[in-house]
Amino acid sequence: MTTLADYLEKNADRIDKVIHRYFGDVHGDLFRASAHLLLAGGKRLRPAVVMLAADAVRKGSSDDLIPAALALELTHNFTLIHDDIMDGDRVRRGVPTVHTVWDEPTAILAGDVLYAKAFEFICLSEASDAAKVRATKMLARTCAEICDGQSMDMAFEKRNDVSEAEYLEMVSKKTGVLYGASAAIGGILAGANPIQTDALYQFGLNSGIAFQIQDDLIDLLASPEISGKDQASDIREGKQTLIAIKAREKGIDLAPYRRSLSPEEINDLIAKLKDAGVIDEVREKAVERATVAKEALSVLPNSEEKRLLSEIADFFIDRGN
Amino acid sequence: MTTLADYLEKNADRIDKVIHRYFGDVHGDLFRASAHLLLAGGKRLRPAVVMLAADAVRKGSSDDLIPAALALELTHNFTLIHDDIMDGDRVRRGVPTVHTVWDEPTAILAGDVLYAKAFEFICLSEASDAAKVRATKMLARTCAEICDGQSMDMAFEKRNDVSEAEYLEMVSKKTGVLYGASAAIGGILAGANPIQTDALYQFGLNSGIAFQIQDDLIDLLASPEISGKDQASDIREGKQTLIAIKAREKGIDLAPYRRSLSPEEINDLIAKLKDAGVIDEVREKAVERATVAKEALSVLPNSEEKRLLSEIADFFIDRGN
Repeated sequence: MTTLADYLEKNADRIDKVIHRYFGDVHGDLFRASAHLLLAGGKRLRPAVVMLAADAVRKGSSDDLIPAALALELTHNFTLIHDDIMDGDRVRRGVPTVHTVWDEPTAILAGDVLYAKAFEFICLSEASDAAKVRATKMLARTCAEICDGQSMDMAFEKRNDVSEAEYLEMVSKKTGVLYGASAAIGGILAGANPIQTDALYQFGLNSGIAFQIQDDLIDLLASPEISGKDQASDIREGKQTLIAIKAREKGIDLAPYRRSLSPEEINDLIAKLKDAGVIDEVREKAVERATVAKEALSVLPNSEEKRLLSEIADFFIDRGN
Repeated sequence: MTTLADYLEKNADRIDKVIHRYFGDVHGDLFRASAHLLLAGGKRLRPAVVMLAADAVRKGSSDDLIPAALALELTHNFTLIHDDIMDGDRVRRGVPTVHTVWDEPTAILAGDVLYAKAFEFICLSEASDAAKVRATKMLARTCAEICDGQSMDMAFEKRNDVSEAEYLEMVSKKTGVLYGASAAIGGILAGANPIQTDALYQFGLNSGIAFQIQDDLIDLLASPEISGKDQASDIREGKQTLIAIKAREKGIDLAPYRRSLSPEEINDLIAKLKDAGVIDEVREKAVERATVAKEALSVLPNSEEKRLLSEIADFFIDRGN
């Protein structure tokens, strides 16, 4: 029985091979800028979801869909390059961001190149034309939604009255829909029927939302050694996470924590949020979403791949615990 | 017999109707930013090329391809929004640019939304799935080339040794390929065979190159009343146009003109460039490209639409004369 960790490692290897074949030796500054973040590695979770969804639908090896799996990784990378410009972030995956190494105009174009390549690679998969058209439409709608999610995220920075419903819409769009599209596109290209496709989309969407909620928890709870980033940076920046929203509901004012915090202050704040039930409630929301995601898979026949998809949903909420 | 002017006007009307239906009453700041430039009008030349190419192939009315025609206009608008950020341009089509009315992050996202919509609209046309997949691939490759063209254009600003071949590659990518794709996609979706598709691509590509060379001539020769912009701005900014390249070949140093010029100084410079044969040679290049474009159409049966396509190539090099 393959463990999820083994599967993800093998999958990342095969995706990395294709990435190196297509982007490892590109000419010209622009194409090198496009390849920069791709070549810095990553867990290739979206490609894994594409491949597992396809294999779960047709119980076979779907190597012919690797171009589509890559397309979803390219889409993710294009959004990261553009987001890093907007958010002014300087480091990503341990390397300087594209607009830092080159400049903003080159980074805008580098993202735009990957955007184009994503659609090209969807069409390079081995699948029926009808399936490719459906996959293209889904990717296009997804990209527009991701833009809307990023726009909401930026708008939230200027507010401190964001509701839980607004937060959930934002993370659905910013993180959920691309996992939804990954699962659904894998299914569509493998010949899934509409019920299976919808189920796979719901699996991905809810897994992605769970992933993002867990990310918010990791930011607050995990030490920098585990999370690889500053602890409590969301609190310091006043971000409207589910933690901040639930704290506000319970009358806990996070405004005084919007500054550099010592480890002791962070621990005191965590204790306060735990006492008020904030942490448990937020974790419950993540668990709920992962449960919805796993339940959606029930329309698929049992298989090794269905089990691994289910484990991905669990992995998303177990990270950093 | 329809004149080209009449055709373009009627075509712009029907494209504008669809634009207003889809983008006239959108909700949310981001989608309004996406629609801003689209709603500011324009001649809708690329949609006209899509529709004429389709009608020339199947000699019918191709209203069912209006979504694809719109897709090419959306692609054009996405590149304009992103280019305006990179070039720091503040006015376009008589309205303030998107990043000026909103901000750069919103403008990046607004362009990204149109980019997604372009692919969605290609797939919304009435055509076979095989044709839609071919059209999607062509649009994707074209977008990547346009990015490369804009990147070359920016790199040229730091050089003054750009060759004619480099210039032609840059304008092919920046302007030519989207006209090539417009004509070819119209053909593909209307059921063109590969020889017709290639011919239509060559028609569009060469028309687009002719268009850009003529644009360079208009910038230098046309008064602001005719061109709607500052006269000789390319010279003032030291742009590597075909005029600048040919002037350099003939030993004319344009460096002293890289500043605000009086109307008299502009006229003296024009006279100097005319005497040296620069203007005639540049015009000849535009005429050559328009001729290649029109000759490419010979594989198509004679029709009203083929004549109008041919007239578009002429129109591109007659503008501003």
